Amino acid sequence: MGFEATFKALGDPTRRRILELLRAGEKSAGELAAQFGTTNATISHHLSVLRDAGLIDDEKRGKYIYYSLNTSVMEDIYAWVAGLLGGNGDETEPPV
Amino acid sequence: MGFEATFKALGDPTRRRILELLRAGEKSAGELAAQFGTTNATISHHLSVLRDAGLIDDEKRGKYIYYSLNTSVMEDIYAWVAGLLGGNGDETEPPV
Repeated sequence: MGFEATFKALGDPTRRRILELLRAGEKSAGELAAQFGTTNATISHHLSVLRDAGLIDDEKRGKYIYYSLNTSVMEDIYAWVAGLLGGNGDETEPPV
Repeated sequence: MGFEATFKALGDPTRRRILELLRAGEKSAGELAAQFGTTNATISHHLSVLRDAGLIDDEKRGKYIYYSLNTSVMEDIYAWVAGLLGGNGDETEPPV
């Protein structure tokens, strides 16, 4: 597994902020756009990048699509970073 | 503080592998290049990206420059990811 798409998605401050907002629970694109004072179209682009990177899920209910954190890829990142920080002198490394 | 340069640096598999190798302790560019079967020049480019992102330090000793992990930025990433994974329903977030 590669982390390319994940790290690319995380490299943008708006996308990181979206993840922080979704930490509190699912939100629609409109609710997110309101937080940023921007259009739904702008937010939708960021949401599609996050979704393609596996960082969020979407679910259509009625008129709206609701976005929520998908923590599984983030847990892989967390484990990889923890592995680097917990260096103990051997050269084994987690699969990346 | 922004994570742009950090996440960009981490988006490359060779650079992630360099960090994994440095986890075991400092290495020269030549030692790293030998691990990848590539030239020092190729590795030096990746090392400069990692250094500019604050992820590694370098120290010249004698004829060689030795590279080592700088964990402080990585600890910031770790804390940010941990904050996302530890979501508890409020919307506070760490400074990014």
